[in-house]
Amino acid sequence: MALTLTPLVGIPMIHEGDDLSKVILAALQANDITLQDGDILVLAQKIVSKAEGRLENLAEVSPSESALELAEKSGKDPRLVEVIVRESREVLRVKPGTIIVEHRLGFVCASAGVDHSNASLDPQLPPPGSMAPNTEDAEWVLLLPEDPDASAQALCNCLETISGVKLGVMIIDSHGRAWRLGTVGVVIGLAGVPGLVDLRGQVDLFGYPLKITVIGAADELAAAASLVMGQAAEGTPVVHVRGFPYPLRQSSLSEMLRPRQEDLFR
Amino acid sequence: MALTLTPLVGIPMIHEGDDLSKVILAALQANDITLQDGDILVLAQKIVSKAEGRLENLAEVSPSESALELAEKSGKDPRLVEVIVRESREVLRVKPGTIIVEHRLGFVCASAGVDHSNASLDPQLPPPGSMAPNTEDAEWVLLLPEDPDASAQALCNCLETISGVKLGVMIIDSHGRAWRLGTVGVVIGLAGVPGLVDLRGQVDLFGYPLKITVIGAADELAAAASLVMGQAAEGTPVVHVRGFPYPLRQSSLSEMLRPRQEDLFR
Repeated sequence: MALTLTPLVGIPMIHEGDDLSKVILAALQANDITLQDGDILVLAQKIVSKAEGRLENLAEVSPSESALELAEKSGKDPRLVEVIVRESREVLRVKPGTIIVEHRLGFVCASAGVDHSNASLDPQLPPPGSMAPNTEDAEWVLLLPEDPDASAQALCNCLETISGVKLGVMIIDSHGRAWRLGTVGVVIGLAGVPGLVDLRGQVDLFGYPLKITVIGAADELAAAASLVMGQAAEGTPVVHVRGFPYPLRQSSLSEMLRPRQEDLFR
Repeated sequence: MALTLTPLVGIPMIHEGDDLSKVILAALQANDITLQDGDILVLAQKIVSKAEGRLENLAEVSPSESALELAEKSGKDPRLVEVIVRESREVLRVKPGTIIVEHRLGFVCASAGVDHSNASLDPQLPPPGSMAPNTEDAEWVLLLPEDPDASAQALCNCLETISGVKLGVMIIDSHGRAWRLGTVGVVIGLAGVPGLVDLRGQVDLFGYPLKITVIGAADELAAAASLVMGQAAEGTPVVHVRGFPYPLRQSSLSEMLRPRQEDLFR
């Protein structure tokens, strides 16, 4: 069976408080897609963070001593570094232009996934709550969702209730790799989609053990979805997937994270 | 536009000397697919290695001193370790059950991609050349193709000539990751498909700089193709791709490898 990934066109700019299930259902209709059993929806982290109001105003951030030190080593804005440190459990590597951390959610990534590229410039972005006026001095950065597994699960429940079919939902971001250039899509939160597919003990067509035994299925799908979001990610932050080759089941990000004691490269 | 990945059913067992272009063209016909401009064919490493006769008989391998030492540390067969070392530029990490190397082709992976799972047991596998009799004592392992970029390019040229359309070809393997569990498909040789898509300097729909600037497009596609090969990889080692969202162009594996001097995790 073929795997088909369709980027949904026509998703509007997302603002704090927007109901993503309504946005997605409207977009599916506009794209002539009727949800079927086993379909998966893949969301760019950015729209989930925006809907959840995960903005921080750098103008109100006071960098700590350690953030100032890291800012010196990395050449990054000390206030941005302070936000990165708050979102992290541990700083693994620092060099000019780069800070690699273990994010509080458990995965290793650059800059704790904090997006400084355009959140501050977006005229349509609301301030987080009503406390901070959206003045010219405000400089917003966008953090990852508070609990992406929970966000994915809530959205999945809602879409399943309305559609009446069994679905999966994944929230993805783009990560660099230690030894290869270019970013690839990876899962940061999921519901219904198996993070890993364990084939240990299974055999091939001829009865012999398989070479590959534990497949990072959700990350493979995240990479595929990221590819079709691609350049136009601002316009197509939701991808509809049909033909995922494994049964859907309960899952969470934690099953995909290598335990620290098995880490050879920290 | 949707991205569609179709695993070709009915690919036969591949033997040394088989012409993969003929095998693929027959399979495309059997799967009712007519090649179009911009289509990509993704091949599992295994069938390319088999067609090229990249087999080594462990019964004829004498482990060196350093292989014996690594075998002791890793708990692996010293003759297998000798083959792994010969296929590698550098050993990066060793622990029981695991040897991480820089492959002679330049990427970092486990066991130099040497497949010991079932090559030795496959009754249909021919011995490499006619020198070694396929006796019960023979214990074959399968190495990666000698020059996967060249293999991909030759196949691409051949398929383009016959079909008359512009195509891409990728050869993929499955690699583990430093910090995440489960393997994902990655490119080890390619022709026509951009390894990286560089969006630096480009802006989003609203005129602001993009968060992600260099996309590992070929690896994202490799992961997607690997997902649909999946469990049945022995039966569906070729995936047809339509809808790749970037223009095809000349490429090679080298553009995707992080230069050693930029490596923070060696």
